Amino acid sequence: MANAEGQVRLGESALIKQYFAPLCHPDMSFGLSDDAAFLNLASDQQLVLTKDMLVANVHFFADDAPELIAKKALRVNLSDLASKGAKPVGYLLGLGLPSDWTEDWLSRFCKGLGEDQQAFDFPLIGGDTVKSPERLTLSITAFGEVPKGRTILRRNAKPDEDVYVTGTIGDSALGLLLRREPEDYPEIGEEDKAVLINRFLLPQPRLQGLALIRQFATASMDISDGLMGDAAKMASAADCALHLDDAAVPLSLSAKAMLDVTSASRDVALTGGDDYELLFCARRKDREAIRAAASALDVPVTRIGRVAEGKGVCLLDESGHEMALSKGASYEHF
Amino acid sequence: MANAEGQVRLGESALIKQYFAPLCHPDMSFGLSDDAAFLNLASDQQLVLTKDMLVANVHFFADDAPELIAKKALRVNLSDLASKGAKPVGYLLGLGLPSDWTEDWLSRFCKGLGEDQQAFDFPLIGGDTVKSPERLTLSITAFGEVPKGRTILRRNAKPDEDVYVTGTIGDSALGLLLRREPEDYPEIGEEDKAVLINRFLLPQPRLQGLALIRQFATASMDISDGLMGDAAKMASAADCALHLDDAAVPLSLSAKAMLDVTSASRDVALTGGDDYELLFCARRKDREAIRAAASALDVPVTRIGRVAEGKGVCLLDESGHEMALSKGASYEHF
Repeated sequence: MANAEGQVRLGESALIKQYFAPLCHPDMSFGLSDDAAFLNLASDQQLVLTKDMLVANVHFFADDAPELIAKKALRVNLSDLASKGAKPVGYLLGLGLPSDWTEDWLSRFCKGLGEDQQAFDFPLIGGDTVKSPERLTLSITAFGEVPKGRTILRRNAKPDEDVYVTGTIGDSALGLLLRREPEDYPEIGEEDKAVLINRFLLPQPRLQGLALIRQFATASMDISDGLMGDAAKMASAADCALHLDDAAVPLSLSAKAMLDVTSASRDVALTGGDDYELLFCARRKDREAIRAAASALDVPVTRIGRVAEGKGVCLLDESGHEMALSKGASYEHF
Repeated sequence: MANAEGQVRLGESALIKQYFAPLCHPDMSFGLSDDAAFLNLASDQQLVLTKDMLVANVHFFADDAPELIAKKALRVNLSDLASKGAKPVGYLLGLGLPSDWTEDWLSRFCKGLGEDQQAFDFPLIGGDTVKSPERLTLSITAFGEVPKGRTILRRNAKPDEDVYVTGTIGDSALGLLLRREPEDYPEIGEEDKAVLINRFLLPQPRLQGLALIRQFATASMDISDGLMGDAAKMASAADCALHLDDAAVPLSLSAKAMLDVTSASRDVALTGGDDYELLFCARRKDREAIRAAASALDVPVTRIGRVAEGKGVCLLDESGHEMALSKGASYEHF
């Protein structure tokens, strides 16, 4: 590209050599000395592709620790792969660096990438670095593999199936409230605060649940935009309804503590987003097997409802009556 | 993602349904109703991956026609695929829309995507749409396929091989001068101006040369950052030298006209960038076969030099003496 202008601290080639080449997979990316990466798949596997863009002060705070920004960018993509039962293969990184970037920042960002690459066996295989004057902009394309024939989509949910989530819901949305206005919640203990804020800053992709998703999920997605909104998306894709039992939605002790002693609304937990837990459907006949597999894999899994004929998502109280939420069912992140 | 703010003209779901779902490949992306795409490769093929980010007023002018911005974004990626001998398979689109986007703009942008998708048989298979408040930001990840065993890298160039380029060099860099300061070049005829500016706005990926690249190229890349700079990158990757004959570098009649009657420097043509022609190496014994294949495929191909022992790239005059360039050998687009 020819028509850029602006301050150059370190040329692109030097930047790649110093910071990104050490992160890359030698057999797929050739030390990033090429403009393309190559990927061979076993003949019984299909490739799963997912892409997330993250923009400073839209999707994360520009002053968050660079290591955490890096890790979150990888993890939201790993979470997408996990929801499809896909084993991580590698990723491409698009990095738009703002005018005021520093080598210290970049070095810490790459340290975060390196640590998570190792933790999740998820190498860098290529990318592009450009100037994005006002805001750091990240674009991750993640690749995973799943056996041919196991294409686990949102649209495959069917009436009478059970609905499950992994982990706990709402911690991250509550953590965001704390991250934004830490002074507003003096009643919350420091430990609970740290748990919730950490869930916002550093999601845990549910990759340890891969075998369970592959074996039992009829439909699956990760919860990035809030349980209620994402359940509505699944219902829409599958052209059926999701009925969720309010009392069954799993909340962490820290989330309960915050909801008990502050004015923060329970709705925030159910609609907030950034959970990066899995929402999946499975056949009723598999209930026992799912419980056993979840226990064996050490993945917390909770059955929270069922698929029904109809449209949309509704939240039911213990008498089975539909409950109203105080705000829109989902965050639209655009 | 939970913490975005700002004006929403059309929700993300509606945006996807209205503008992007019609562009997508049904078998790989499932109408974009999922958060992942699936890709199956024939067992004798490997996947080629390439990624380019493009930022408004860094890589293109924000007020360029939306159709052209869309097409250029696709074509710079198609050019990368062509350089690897890879047949286009599909792409993921990351779209960061600025605060002042309009539906008219987006509609025209998608029209451009649609036209080029059809022209190059290159479907949309997924993506992500976010807010990028100040600047339109595009991130394209392109996928192609090439037979296993044909991994055509920059690094494979060997001494005594020939160096070739397709098409003509420098039109786009000269077109950029005209695009930026149209009043500065009154001596250039309107037709030549249009040819050169169009080369800048709308590159032509050399996909019709795929068979030639697959059959003959030992090393290959596309010229995006200027002939001299990209040749230097190939030399560096291959740990050898590229000797280019100045007189052999092919220039279009329009480029010659501009160089003849203005103060624009010939160096601009050789170092400017945005050519999106292919630079490749091949064995001397294949000269005749390459000429015949180029003619059969209707791809203009010119032999412009040779690979040698040593380092770096040099431009030789007709007596074989090294020529100096008046500016740095390459644009570093960061």
